[in-house]
Amino acid sequence: MKHTISILVENQFGVLARIAGMFSGRGFNIDTLNVAPIRNSKLSRITVTVNGDNEQLDQATKQLKKLVNVIEVIDFKEDQYVSRELVMVKIQTNHDNRSDVVQICDLFRARVINATLTNIIAELTGDDEKLNAFLNLLDEFGILEMARTGNLALKR
Amino acid sequence: MKHTISILVENQFGVLARIAGMFSGRGFNIDTLNVAPIRNSKLSRITVTVNGDNEQLDQATKQLKKLVNVIEVIDFKEDQYVSRELVMVKIQTNHDNRSDVVQICDLFRARVINATLTNIIAELTGDDEKLNAFLNLLDEFGILEMARTGNLALKR
Repeated sequence: MKHTISILVENQFGVLARIAGMFSGRGFNIDTLNVAPIRNSKLSRITVTVNGDNEQLDQATKQLKKLVNVIEVIDFKEDQYVSRELVMVKIQTNHDNRSDVVQICDLFRARVINATLTNIIAELTGDDEKLNAFLNLLDEFGILEMARTGNLALKR
Repeated sequence: MKHTISILVENQFGVLARIAGMFSGRGFNIDTLNVAPIRNSKLSRITVTVNGDNEQLDQATKQLKKLVNVIEVIDFKEDQYVSRELVMVKIQTNHDNRSDVVQICDLFRARVINATLTNIIAELTGDDEKLNAFLNLLDEFGILEMARTGNLALKR
């Protein structure tokens, strides 16, 4: 089962490496992860998505809570939280298909943030399902490059 | 100086812990990082922002390229790339100020994704400057929680 875990940590040296190491050391493969500082504080928030057995993950989150510099660990349960991800994608375009690509972006409320004669870069936020539907449609034109942030999550 | 570094890696066990460890082992504090798999491949893209001396960071990126499971490392130079970040923020609201908060969201083209009687959760994408301007305005109402993804970047 896929879990979304939010970890509040002190901005100390090597904390991220320790947390990533704790997951891999226990046999969990991190699917996505993001970390950024929280303004006006000396804290950062890490959001991780990881697949694994519920019981083993409970053990892992208990272990996380014991780590130095870890302030709070939340393993979100369904419906308890809202979650979003950002994707940036560079799509191959030409004179003939550019308006089709722009139309797909409009349909998904994606924003075009750069355009050249041969490609368009668009950004879109949403849940997994929405992002995948968007990317599936764009496959037809050719995705040159893409990057995703992984899920962010906040309690409702 | 702040660097934005994009690292393409194989989805292998422990790669993230090794990369985070390489930065902290060399005395760099990671400011933001995000990682997510690239669909239809066995690769993930990691985007890191890190502050540091240019020469030392050149050494670090050379070291990164030598790591097993690392396919490509790009240290983006200014104007060469587009970069975006996603923030989710929960703002304290009440009957009297809710419309002010929604108006600020509209001005920044932020989207309200959840609302209760006592708070609103909004999402916004942009560069550092835009996100900070938005958050500064919201401080007046009270930011209850927030999470940021850190920068994503793609070559223009």
